[in-house]
Amino acid sequence: MTLRRHSLLSKNVARALRQRLRREYQKGGRLPSELEIAQEYGVSRGTIRDALAILEREGAIFRRQGSGTYVNQYALNIQASIESAYEFSDLIRQAGYHAEIRPLTVERQPLPADIAARLERPPASDALFVRKLFLADGNPAIYCLDILPTDLVREPYQPEELHAPIFDFMRQRCYQTVTLVLADIIPRVMDGELAELLESPVGQALLQFDEVSFNTLNKPVLFSRVYYRDGYVRFSVLRKKM
Amino acid sequence: MTLRRHSLLSKNVARALRQRLRREYQKGGRLPSELEIAQEYGVSRGTIRDALAILEREGAIFRRQGSGTYVNQYALNIQASIESAYEFSDLIRQAGYHAEIRPLTVERQPLPADIAARLERPPASDALFVRKLFLADGNPAIYCLDILPTDLVREPYQPEELHAPIFDFMRQRCYQTVTLVLADIIPRVMDGELAELLESPVGQALLQFDEVSFNTLNKPVLFSRVYYRDGYVRFSVLRKKM
Repeated sequence: MTLRRHSLLSKNVARALRQRLRREYQKGGRLPSELEIAQEYGVSRGTIRDALAILEREGAIFRRQGSGTYVNQYALNIQASIESAYEFSDLIRQAGYHAEIRPLTVERQPLPADIAARLERPPASDALFVRKLFLADGNPAIYCLDILPTDLVREPYQPEELHAPIFDFMRQRCYQTVTLVLADIIPRVMDGELAELLESPVGQALLQFDEVSFNTLNKPVLFSRVYYRDGYVRFSVLRKKM
Repeated sequence: MTLRRHSLLSKNVARALRQRLRREYQKGGRLPSELEIAQEYGVSRGTIRDALAILEREGAIFRRQGSGTYVNQYALNIQASIESAYEFSDLIRQAGYHAEIRPLTVERQPLPADIAARLERPPASDALFVRKLFLADGNPAIYCLDILPTDLVREPYQPEELHAPIFDFMRQRCYQTVTLVLADIIPRVMDGELAELLESPVGQALLQFDEVSFNTLNKPVLFSRVYYRDGYVRFSVLRKKM
């Protein structure tokens, strides 16, 4: 009952193929045979089959019974797939902008009751509040607040380390590996504080994601609240009807 | 390179298991062995393995190396998974409300240029505009506009048929089966028209999904614009970090 784990090689081949499809199959079309692709990339047929299975699951390619494998040009053009784990800077780059991180503040504060509940901690227990802004071509595009219970921190650290991606910090200083993120998708209207942070008019719509990250033992280890200013990163989702 | 297709039996067993997990594993916990579950449901181990693979892919269960299969209680409580194809009435019922459909209007109109482009039709070609409201406990929760090019309609029909789920109409009267839906997720603010339709204050945030549906040949056959009033249906997404 295990899901097939894809080898690093298959994943790399899938990445190379994905880039090639974006370049050469903007109008869709039929792919060469597995054997031909395998020869071209100098890898086994099993590896190619695995790489194509990854692309099929993403929706980038599909099979037509008895006729071959085709490119789904619509899925190729998805800017930010909502199912994928990503780093914010990558999202901004994928949308075609220059990405930059602006660290804002790091504070120790007690957990508000609702967030404590989602992190399965007692209310008011101590946590690190890390605020960052992600810029697209110099303009604020994503605002992120990470809330990390301090009971998880196992190693001394320099404050600057919290400016790096939080998952790196959690691995290195908390020995925590995040395997699953559960995100609630919430429509919001800019209030004064968000408008100032995101340099946008009050009253504009934006997306809020409330995310709980779980470690390998399925325990909640991080709460994040992320705001996406509309117009920079747009999320899409590809649904298969079975 | 084909994705494994799950049998109807596996899917039914997965559905039964999912309901049972929601009832009996609200705090997580370890599942009985494959063999035990197979015996209990009177199906083969292969079928159970398949059903568990479906639940693992949804994130509802996960394997811990050498220790067994566990329930992810967080994933179980997802109200509306954004990756799943669904009917609006089911979404409303899953959120705990009584669901009702209120058909609004059916009109023939020319396609606006942007939607014509997404449907790969000439601008101003003829289309059916079908508007419906979905009520939760009698309150407007979802407003849906389906835009179907009339060149697809192959059979005469009664206007009331357009009040049924549009995918049924497309199968029966257009011979079109939708296999894939690409949805853009857009934050919006209620304007006067939406506020009146959804009986909500102007200025409130809501989610807009712009959806293009594709048939088995990967051709766009339907454009839908759907508005979800916040507070009734909330979407979540479970992301696996690889």
